Amino acid sequence: MSAETRVPVQRTARSRLTAAFEAEISQLLGTRWSQSEAVRDHHGRDESSYPPMPPDGVAFVQSTEEVAAVLKLCQAHRVPVIPYGNGSSVEGHVLAVEGGISLDISGMSGLLELHPEDFTVSVQPGLSRRQLNEELRHTGLFFPIDPGADASIGGMCATSASGTNAVRYGTMRENVLALTVVLIDGRVIRTGTRARKSSAGYDLTHLFIGSEGTLGVITEVTLRLHPQPEQILAATCSFPRIGAAVSTVVQIIQYGMAISRVEFIDALAVRAINRHAHLQMPEQPTLFFEFAGSPAAVQEQVAIVSGLVAEAGGSGFAWAEQQEDRNRLWHARHQAYFAALQLKPGCRAMATDVCVPISRLAECVEATVADLADASIPAPIVGHVGDGNFHLIMLVDPDRPEEWAEAEQINRRLVARAIAMDGSCSGEHGIGLHKQDFLRDQVGDDAVEVMRSLKRTLDPLNLMNPGKIFAAAVPQ
Amino acid sequence: MSAETRVPVQRTARSRLTAAFEAEISQLLGTRWSQSEAVRDHHGRDESSYPPMPPDGVAFVQSTEEVAAVLKLCQAHRVPVIPYGNGSSVEGHVLAVEGGISLDISGMSGLLELHPEDFTVSVQPGLSRRQLNEELRHTGLFFPIDPGADASIGGMCATSASGTNAVRYGTMRENVLALTVVLIDGRVIRTGTRARKSSAGYDLTHLFIGSEGTLGVITEVTLRLHPQPEQILAATCSFPRIGAAVSTVVQIIQYGMAISRVEFIDALAVRAINRHAHLQMPEQPTLFFEFAGSPAAVQEQVAIVSGLVAEAGGSGFAWAEQQEDRNRLWHARHQAYFAALQLKPGCRAMATDVCVPISRLAECVEATVADLADASIPAPIVGHVGDGNFHLIMLVDPDRPEEWAEAEQINRRLVARAIAMDGSCSGEHGIGLHKQDFLRDQVGDDAVEVMRSLKRTLDPLNLMNPGKIFAAAVPQ
Repeated sequence: MSAETRVPVQRTARSRLTAAFEAEISQLLGTRWSQSEAVRDHHGRDESSYPPMPPDGVAFVQSTEEVAAVLKLCQAHRVPVIPYGNGSSVEGHVLAVEGGISLDISGMSGLLELHPEDFTVSVQPGLSRRQLNEELRHTGLFFPIDPGADASIGGMCATSASGTNAVRYGTMRENVLALTVVLIDGRVIRTGTRARKSSAGYDLTHLFIGSEGTLGVITEVTLRLHPQPEQILAATCSFPRIGAAVSTVVQIIQYGMAISRVEFIDALAVRAINRHAHLQMPEQPTLFFEFAGSPAAVQEQVAIVSGLVAEAGGSGFAWAEQQEDRNRLWHARHQAYFAALQLKPGCRAMATDVCVPISRLAECVEATVADLADASIPAPIVGHVGDGNFHLIMLVDPDRPEEWAEAEQINRRLVARAIAMDGSCSGEHGIGLHKQDFLRDQVGDDAVEVMRSLKRTLDPLNLMNPGKIFAAAVPQ
Repeated sequence: MSAETRVPVQRTARSRLTAAFEAEISQLLGTRWSQSEAVRDHHGRDESSYPPMPPDGVAFVQSTEEVAAVLKLCQAHRVPVIPYGNGSSVEGHVLAVEGGISLDISGMSGLLELHPEDFTVSVQPGLSRRQLNEELRHTGLFFPIDPGADASIGGMCATSASGTNAVRYGTMRENVLALTVVLIDGRVIRTGTRARKSSAGYDLTHLFIGSEGTLGVITEVTLRLHPQPEQILAATCSFPRIGAAVSTVVQIIQYGMAISRVEFIDALAVRAINRHAHLQMPEQPTLFFEFAGSPAAVQEQVAIVSGLVAEAGGSGFAWAEQQEDRNRLWHARHQAYFAALQLKPGCRAMATDVCVPISRLAECVEATVADLADASIPAPIVGHVGDGNFHLIMLVDPDRPEEWAEAEQINRRLVARAIAMDGSCSGEHGIGLHKQDFLRDQVGDDAVEVMRSLKRTLDPLNLMNPGKIFAAAVPQ
């Protein structure tokens, strides 16, 4: 697939829904089946740079049993199914590129079982990460994974999401104990237990985490929780140059410190956040930190980081200790994507997502900044740099194909750079529609074919979110 | 499969190697292909309770390319292949229940790439965990996963091993970044990168971790490393009753403390260790602790744990601060399995391996102790109780079938108890030959069938370690 054919994607010519299917699903779901244009349109768009591609109908499901019934119906009628959480994908995951129905799980948003004494909670997939933490507030525990959007827990499983806390707490992969999954033929499996570890058979949990809705529908999730730290301290500080900021992060990570969060944003991203959130941060390369633990541990971390920052020429520490101040700071950071969009009215964003070994991070960021020097499109940089993961948010005029092409070429060079450093084309967003040839470049034809064979095994008719991860899961 | 048919397992009637296969593999490997009785016998036994079942020949391989060549040959001639590391499985993983060859990877024991600045190392699968830590000693880093035996890293991947450090550092699942795997048809894939996280396609790394040699042969492993803590302090203390010891652990874990290790052994296991290692620990239920971190952090942990221990009636803290003393203490703990065997000369051990949510641990251990009250066989208890995982080491006379049957019934009741608590039949040993019906009880027929379908996809002729995890991977 070439860059030219990838953007924009055209919907393929799978046939539309039959009257028989519409009658059956209508009977099954009543008013929770909709083919209204507004509902279809809402479910055919996400935060990616693709134009909307609406499904042929939307099923609002309410239980595992109902999901099983809908999937069996879809299999019987050969209808593609696209699981839909909060629509916050940045890689086109919810777009109906082969038609079919959107399976909206937002009505399945309950907390099923809370076991604070085991640090576990079981939830339905439509619960969002913020809703979950609201529910947990009284327990002294929290769930750390925090992609920028207030994504659904099911969607976060599907993309193997992470965010600003991964440097300390890991990603979804390290924080999901078990899933309930419905397969396209209606079989329901549970992939794990509430025990902290298990060596019982193949690891089906991790097979579904990051499978982007292409293998089955997640209907229950059992998560690990973490104790809220005794003390939390957040801070920002500024650097004269990007290289100095990123190198400081590398030193902090190489020190082996258990820092909670360490995030980078460049001067342009600071400007976007300042405008969006009415802040007055210095418009320079900036690091966001969070230190957490016992007061003694926090004090130790702060002393070490302050020293490293000063040595690198960083300055202007702004501290936030009260929860309200910390929330404001992290809210600003989380809004970077949406703030960036406002730098160029009417634009769409193409977000890059490479992740490299930490020792190569400074080199990768600096080479990318050099590559952007002559770019005609604005591209603020934000990054979960403690993980070696950073994003360019390339702001593209949807009506100017030459801007798409330019962004695509920048992305392509960046991914090649990351892969050459033994890194990944995607740290947390997934492959979706946009990175299918990057995946092949990264893992090779044989590994892609192994993935496709697993897909064929669990979904022989290629009905689960077809066209995502792989251009086609059945040989063409 | 009933308890009666499971022990002992009979070798099935697959045909022996053909002269053509023998000629070809001999030409490929020269003197590194052996059919001597001594070599075959050595490769047909492990630490499980099963009688030896030797392979028909042993291939000593030295490279990924050679593994690929051998596997292609095996596929062409329909010869089963059993990957062999250090032979320390306790579940019969290396036994040639369907004949075929043992693929000995012990000659592939090199350290390939060390990146201390990224906390990663890439090794060949035959390197043992102790050898690896020897190689790392000068770096200030270490690899924490430590099953009782000095297992090979490849074998530890294959069973998703853990050990005494998992409570702090996780298991193999959390500490493997990437694998190189050879499939039965000779294809070689790499499943990950050296980046700390990736959302690029299906998680093949975790599919192979815990696959027990049934999906492919692991020929390279990229691991996460961890900084050696600034200070380490180990300790033991005794309790009047098992319940008090286990409840103390539950409280420590529920406190949310980052303790490094917390292990339990019962009075009988203490007696075994005392005899084996010439120690004089009080023969009472005993906890082993390790505290690590900055001096301030260690001091905080020690204060909290000492308080909880005293409240529960524990006493007799014996501290070990110097590395030599700590090594002696942990060596004694790691030798518990071998020490236990000496309690009953000539015996074989059947080890149980349940893992339950921490809130159910005390109840599970106490019910199990009650169940053992009338047992005729000695069964010392040791446990990675911080994870909710504990083992009975049931010492059985190999010539007395009634002892096998009794042990089997105890195991069966224990597993049923753990599954009813939403726990796992195996925390770290794997399914192997012994737990195939426990796996089915735990995950259900549909999930087992999903696992078998993945197996058929990657190994359609059922040649990779056949008869392990599933009785047969092809329909009978």
